[in-house]
Amino acid sequence: MPPKIVPRLPRGMRDILPQKMLQRQYVIGEIEKVFQRFGFEPLQTPVLELRETLMGKYGEDAEKLIYDARHREGKEELSLRYDLTVPLTRVVAMYPDLVKPFKRYQIAPVWRAERPQKGRYREFYQCDADIVGSPSMLADAEIITMIYTVLRTLGFQTFVTKINNRKILTGIGQYAGVPNELLGGLYRSIDKLEKIGVDGVREEMIRNAIPESVVDKMIDLISIQPNDLSELRERLREIPIALEGLDELEQLATFLNAAGVPHTHYQFDFAMVRGLAYYTGPIYETVVTEPKIGALTGGGRYDELVGLFSKHSLPTTGTSFGIERIIDVMDELAMYPASIGKTVTHVLVTVFNRDLVGVSLRMANLLRAAGINTELALEIEGLGKQLKYAAAKAIPFVVIIGPDENAAQQATLRDMTTGEQTLVAQEELAMTLKRKLGFA
Amino acid sequence: MPPKIVPRLPRGMRDILPQKMLQRQYVIGEIEKVFQRFGFEPLQTPVLELRETLMGKYGEDAEKLIYDARHREGKEELSLRYDLTVPLTRVVAMYPDLVKPFKRYQIAPVWRAERPQKGRYREFYQCDADIVGSPSMLADAEIITMIYTVLRTLGFQTFVTKINNRKILTGIGQYAGVPNELLGGLYRSIDKLEKIGVDGVREEMIRNAIPESVVDKMIDLISIQPNDLSELRERLREIPIALEGLDELEQLATFLNAAGVPHTHYQFDFAMVRGLAYYTGPIYETVVTEPKIGALTGGGRYDELVGLFSKHSLPTTGTSFGIERIIDVMDELAMYPASIGKTVTHVLVTVFNRDLVGVSLRMANLLRAAGINTELALEIEGLGKQLKYAAAKAIPFVVIIGPDENAAQQATLRDMTTGEQTLVAQEELAMTLKRKLGFA
Repeated sequence: MPPKIVPRLPRGMRDILPQKMLQRQYVIGEIEKVFQRFGFEPLQTPVLELRETLMGKYGEDAEKLIYDARHREGKEELSLRYDLTVPLTRVVAMYPDLVKPFKRYQIAPVWRAERPQKGRYREFYQCDADIVGSPSMLADAEIITMIYTVLRTLGFQTFVTKINNRKILTGIGQYAGVPNELLGGLYRSIDKLEKIGVDGVREEMIRNAIPESVVDKMIDLISIQPNDLSELRERLREIPIALEGLDELEQLATFLNAAGVPHTHYQFDFAMVRGLAYYTGPIYETVVTEPKIGALTGGGRYDELVGLFSKHSLPTTGTSFGIERIIDVMDELAMYPASIGKTVTHVLVTVFNRDLVGVSLRMANLLRAAGINTELALEIEGLGKQLKYAAAKAIPFVVIIGPDENAAQQATLRDMTTGEQTLVAQEELAMTLKRKLGFA
Repeated sequence: MPPKIVPRLPRGMRDILPQKMLQRQYVIGEIEKVFQRFGFEPLQTPVLELRETLMGKYGEDAEKLIYDARHREGKEELSLRYDLTVPLTRVVAMYPDLVKPFKRYQIAPVWRAERPQKGRYREFYQCDADIVGSPSMLADAEIITMIYTVLRTLGFQTFVTKINNRKILTGIGQYAGVPNELLGGLYRSIDKLEKIGVDGVREEMIRNAIPESVVDKMIDLISIQPNDLSELRERLREIPIALEGLDELEQLATFLNAAGVPHTHYQFDFAMVRGLAYYTGPIYETVVTEPKIGALTGGGRYDELVGLFSKHSLPTTGTSFGIERIIDVMDELAMYPASIGKTVTHVLVTVFNRDLVGVSLRMANLLRAAGINTELALEIEGLGKQLKYAAAKAIPFVVIIGPDENAAQQATLRDMTTGEQTLVAQEELAMTLKRKLGFA
């Protein structure tokens, strides 16, 4: 027989072992609950899409990262999905009878062959919620209110959703006299304001061959205080597209106030630019300010993309939650509630000896029926080994039923944290445990 | 611009739209709850595995169905996982420190390029729970008890888990004098007993060149009444491997009795053969008897496979739930509880006119905070259209706040099923709705 070789994972892939999975399930579960609270419904699309569905949507650099797939006898060119947005546009086109506005969420893996590094994998989850078919700023307000609710529910305190509008960015470009073909590079420079400061942005613009007079006007505008809509309106009063964008943000502010989103948690920031070219209206990005951990959500209105495959244009707005980063941050900051322990198991019922297997089995199933996650010791090799198993797995309680206990219809309940042992009547064990676990 | 083409799905793939997704989530959620009740914990493995990890494990015919994947600049040969068992064996080998017994479940899609047909897709979910590292019959008893609990929880009534033992099948072969190389074909014939009857099985064996004297002995044995362990023990008293298998089943029966699994729900059936060659001990398969809908679970003990990549052999037992079939059957038999409706949304809060947007927005968020899944009407184009939206989406309740209602701090609550409308004080709306929804 050949020597056994320890198998490997593909580059950039990972397993998620039970303890981490319990944390993931908690985060995903809490987010889903809020999504449903807002009337968003789950959608599932296949991992494999026709290659032609994906190509030409993300730009050449991105499309290099797409995984292709095929089966030996198959004629179809397939790819693993790169995001959840293009599949959404396909779904909307294929099922024209879906009632609009169509509010869907999807929390699912996508694949990108990026260079792997700490915390970045080639298979990772995206978490998107979008409203398809409504041009109203109410839809954008709902999305931002939902972001606020999700992050508060997960325990985040000091975060701000930065809001801008693509129409204002376009207007700023027009006002400063930037030729259209330079706009993309310009936005990329502005986006770095927080990172490299005003002087850095100025230098980069000049390096990119933008005339100095234009640069001055641009810098002037993007330095306007966040939230000062009226100052910006005054400067851009001759630029219709900018005024349209400002009207939208004002409406949005009214709705966010009515929705009870506190002023501390959103901000108009005219230097915030989201990378993707497909946004057409309000854009939003949420950053945690203390500790500084970067963006946790990103999104905005994209009125053209979803209609790409469809007969009619379909105004759409939505957000992505950076769920992998949220999980990492919650892990680092120990933000999980105590109930998300190292194991799902609340109690191990030990087996004292062969004669008492039946007694322990019955007790285990009694506890399960009472809603307690219960393991039964499977190897009958002495109590010591069974207690060691409970300790290794961090199971908080252990039940022992020896011959004496059983004769008295009792059981010993051991708290593995304190080492404390108490004798409990068998018929009261479920109740006692539920009380100790905080269930009742 | 080129004409817009309605995009397609790859062959054998499907989208799952929200209504069906809510049913899937319900089934998966209920199953997960039972798994955790028994102390099984979630594991996630990547969709892509190294091709070499999968090849040589499933047999040539199966491996033709595997999808290969790669990215343009990647050197690795990758494949989409074909099942959840081989990834489990890889995990167990890669993380030798996992505490044993290791009890994991995984509910996740796998890919097989089979000929698509009604109800059979090329991407489908598998749902596995296994106990790695215990040779004890207690582990098998736990699996069968869990199968019983899962199916009861989902609302199945008349089902039977058929139990056999590979050791008994081997023993029957030895007793009848079947040469080892014919055993595989023999088992395949026996497996058809229920479908083609005793005569059919006899004919098929003879066609397969098995001597008539052997066939008679075989038929005689497999015709023994289910559950009659002592009759079989008597016949096979000279065959050690068969006696070992019988001892195991007797122990299993004792444990199942102690666990409270009713006799109506399991059965020893010596003609039940599970296809996969890797089973080594007890095997089990659950069929619903009324209506006849085939097998819903299949599994057994496979003590060699999981050790394939590992230094030590790792006795393992577990089961698969045919989750796609379970969902289909529950759909056909309308087994979903009434609370799993057509939509997740409990109530639509309409917007009467532009002046009252804020009032409706506040009310929507109040209801959400009270735990009610609430949609806000996003287009302010007349109440009629908003009511039509609620009807199209099958939202059970609608809230209307016009100027008069609002002046009186009231709201109209409309039951969309009966058409009945009631005036409710705004501050009591959440309570009233919760009562009507059966939440409180």
